[in-house]
Amino acid sequence: MKNEREVALLKQLILSRKTDEIKRILSRLHPADIAEILEEVKDENKKVFFELMDLEKATEVLEELEPEERIPYIESIPEMHLVKILENMSVDEIIDLLQKLPDEKVEKLMAKLPQEHQQELKSLIKLAQDSAGGIMTTDYVYLYADKTVEEAIEDVRKFGKEAETIYYLYVVDKEKHLLGVLSLRELIAAPRNKRISEIMHKKVVSVRVDEDQEKVAQLISKYSLLAIPVVDEENHILGIVTVDDAMDVLEEETTEDIHKLAGITPEDEILLTTNILGAVKKRLPWLVVCLLGDLISGVVIDGYSTVLEKVMAVAFFIPVLMATAGNVGTQSLALSVRGLATGEISIKNVMKFLVGETFGGMFVGVSCGAIIATVAALWQKDINLSLVVGASMSIAIMFSAFIGVLIPLIFYKIKVDPAVASGPFITTIIDVTALLIYFALTVTFLGIKKTVAFGRF
Amino acid sequence: MKNEREVALLKQLILSRKTDEIKRILSRLHPADIAEILEEVKDENKKVFFELMDLEKATEVLEELEPEERIPYIESIPEMHLVKILENMSVDEIIDLLQKLPDEKVEKLMAKLPQEHQQELKSLIKLAQDSAGGIMTTDYVYLYADKTVEEAIEDVRKFGKEAETIYYLYVVDKEKHLLGVLSLRELIAAPRNKRISEIMHKKVVSVRVDEDQEKVAQLISKYSLLAIPVVDEENHILGIVTVDDAMDVLEEETTEDIHKLAGITPEDEILLTTNILGAVKKRLPWLVVCLLGDLISGVVIDGYSTVLEKVMAVAFFIPVLMATAGNVGTQSLALSVRGLATGEISIKNVMKFLVGETFGGMFVGVSCGAIIATVAALWQKDINLSLVVGASMSIAIMFSAFIGVLIPLIFYKIKVDPAVASGPFITTIIDVTALLIYFALTVTFLGIKKTVAFGRF
Repeated sequence: MKNEREVALLKQLILSRKTDEIKRILSRLHPADIAEILEEVKDENKKVFFELMDLEKATEVLEELEPEERIPYIESIPEMHLVKILENMSVDEIIDLLQKLPDEKVEKLMAKLPQEHQQELKSLIKLAQDSAGGIMTTDYVYLYADKTVEEAIEDVRKFGKEAETIYYLYVVDKEKHLLGVLSLRELIAAPRNKRISEIMHKKVVSVRVDEDQEKVAQLISKYSLLAIPVVDEENHILGIVTVDDAMDVLEEETTEDIHKLAGITPEDEILLTTNILGAVKKRLPWLVVCLLGDLISGVVIDGYSTVLEKVMAVAFFIPVLMATAGNVGTQSLALSVRGLATGEISIKNVMKFLVGETFGGMFVGVSCGAIIATVAALWQKDINLSLVVGASMSIAIMFSAFIGVLIPLIFYKIKVDPAVASGPFITTIIDVTALLIYFALTVTFLGIKKTVAFGRF
Repeated sequence: MKNEREVALLKQLILSRKTDEIKRILSRLHPADIAEILEEVKDENKKVFFELMDLEKATEVLEELEPEERIPYIESIPEMHLVKILENMSVDEIIDLLQKLPDEKVEKLMAKLPQEHQQELKSLIKLAQDSAGGIMTTDYVYLYADKTVEEAIEDVRKFGKEAETIYYLYVVDKEKHLLGVLSLRELIAAPRNKRISEIMHKKVVSVRVDEDQEKVAQLISKYSLLAIPVVDEENHILGIVTVDDAMDVLEEETTEDIHKLAGITPEDEILLTTNILGAVKKRLPWLVVCLLGDLISGVVIDGYSTVLEKVMAVAFFIPVLMATAGNVGTQSLALSVRGLATGEISIKNVMKFLVGETFGGMFVGVSCGAIIATVAALWQKDINLSLVVGASMSIAIMFSAFIGVLIPLIFYKIKVDPAVASGPFITTIIDVTALLIYFALTVTFLGIKKTVAFGRF
């Protein structure tokens, strides 16, 4: 709670309408802090705050807000101001914003921007939001390969003001083909009369404009880059993605993965703290699918109800069996989905992982089976039942460990997002299977004849 | 599979012992790629690769490996070489490495390093591995406040060679108190005769040396920094944490969170693809705790077994009830644990979130209750049973949604890691509660007298 004092102070000041004081405080706060404070104040006061910031600050604060949070502010800002703010914003942020606004508003705003800016935005706005093109900025510095270091330093001074970063300089030819890269550090250290082409790195890690944003962020992380260039299929440089945007992407993608794993449908437009209907829309779809799936467990019990009628104690172990097998499945799922997301599991070591986890699952299965068999023997004083419960537990756990790992790997292989294999989904499959294993062993080894057939449903 | 070709080629070359060719290929590969390739080759060949790289490259490759992966290589490198490699490595990486080595080895190595280096390492090695101090590097550039821009640029040229980044320059006084910060970009653009104290930013975002590494990474992300300075309680600068290390921390912490959520004990030393015993150690503890917890569900069924004896159909709905309530709990848990991790949920909006999710849970509960009641009515043709099942489902879901959100929030409030409230743990509580609700309603509304008491166990 870093800004608690500021929030309290600002709230007081707004009550007493001391606008000069507010102005002073806002001017010395970091845009990221103002964005946090804005969440705390009433809607009408948010507008007041925006009016009291200078244009540059207002732009920076807007950039700090999530794209969907910007809309209410944008709508309260007079169009004249808005055009100026858009001119100040970095291109990737403008695009994010325009993609959220209604079409007619976008056209109106665009019409007021300089002609060349319009053209650029129009081509960018069509790119997929979750691709390299969707998150790149076109504010970067390029150098021509045939210039000298001296001339290049001058170019950086001149063109670097608008750029998002000047620490990586991209080297191009006259047609803007990406030829190499140079850090500002290397440029400064280089002899003044050398040509850029002589000192640049010719091996550049770059991404195609249609590359998935998660992959882009992973590359930046893997090679510890401050930015990565985005190119088209002919290797023309189109823009760059900077490390701070990569961090945001990773955070966003991780949240999406965790939610999917828990069977929550990702909803772009719906915020966490938003209305109840949003919450329901995120949660209900998978729940209903799994509810219907779990009814099959009921059908299985129905089919074997004569078993329960004869030995009621069989029922006592249904919950622990289903729950433990489900827990093992959830563990395997988490290990493989996360391993795939971080690249720790790849096509190269997938068999090693699958075998390792399956053997691990066998060991876990035998351990848990032994525990439950002991408990069952002590509790029910029925050695046959305890053996059946123990064996069922072991087999069910091995199965769970195996499919909890296998299903996401298959999804990965056929290029479906592995996180779609959500916990609830896997657990449903495991529940039914565990029950079937348990009843099959009960019937076989306890010598109970199953008389009622399936299919009463 | 970027490096597939290289891997195949290198494997062939090593068979035919073409070391010169291998040397050539290794010299033009990025260290991050070599680190990936190393995972693919046999242990004895790994050593060969290390011998064929020059010292600088070998150091960079070691830095790319996870600290625990480095040990086998380190042990195969002759001590003389190792000392040179340590001298080349950045301080934070050396510390990571030394912390994994046995004490006697550390002392032996340290003794061979230059005296002042030894002193520095000895004080750093004591810092907690997951604190700002544990991940910072001491290779940064500082400027004295009273120098001119001209002199400062000269200092950057001179001292910048060793530094991890020269893009942020930290301004200090003679006692190394942190006074301000300046970007290289601003320094270059500034008039040559100005004093540093006149152009520096006096508001610096910094972290205390004992700050948690996750918090450090979040600050870097929030303020879009390339590095953050680490200070002691008297505001002396001790080092910096760079954005690439922050990304690694976020990845590591996220993996830990996802694993904890799935009831997997984080094991620092054990790698994903490692031996079976490692897998078992990660998985078994929570499983056994939950297994014992889930036995209570069995005791509940035992206590109500007369109910099942009279109306067997009651048993058919036990799995779907437990599973659906468990799924809702898992969803709530994921929403709140992730919301807390990203800072989307904070003390300020926690009530809003709790109320929103609980009302959402009520709506979800009523929806699922209606569905299962309809199914039960059609299947069992028993309107009373279907009402009991529907009502139990609704109540159990509301309860699950509520405690799935509440428990991590309580943990957060009492400063326990919210991710400890793992899915299996919450599900166990929910399973037992759902059963108790179901049987209580059954006894009350189906008019079945519960004759057998609890406590046979």
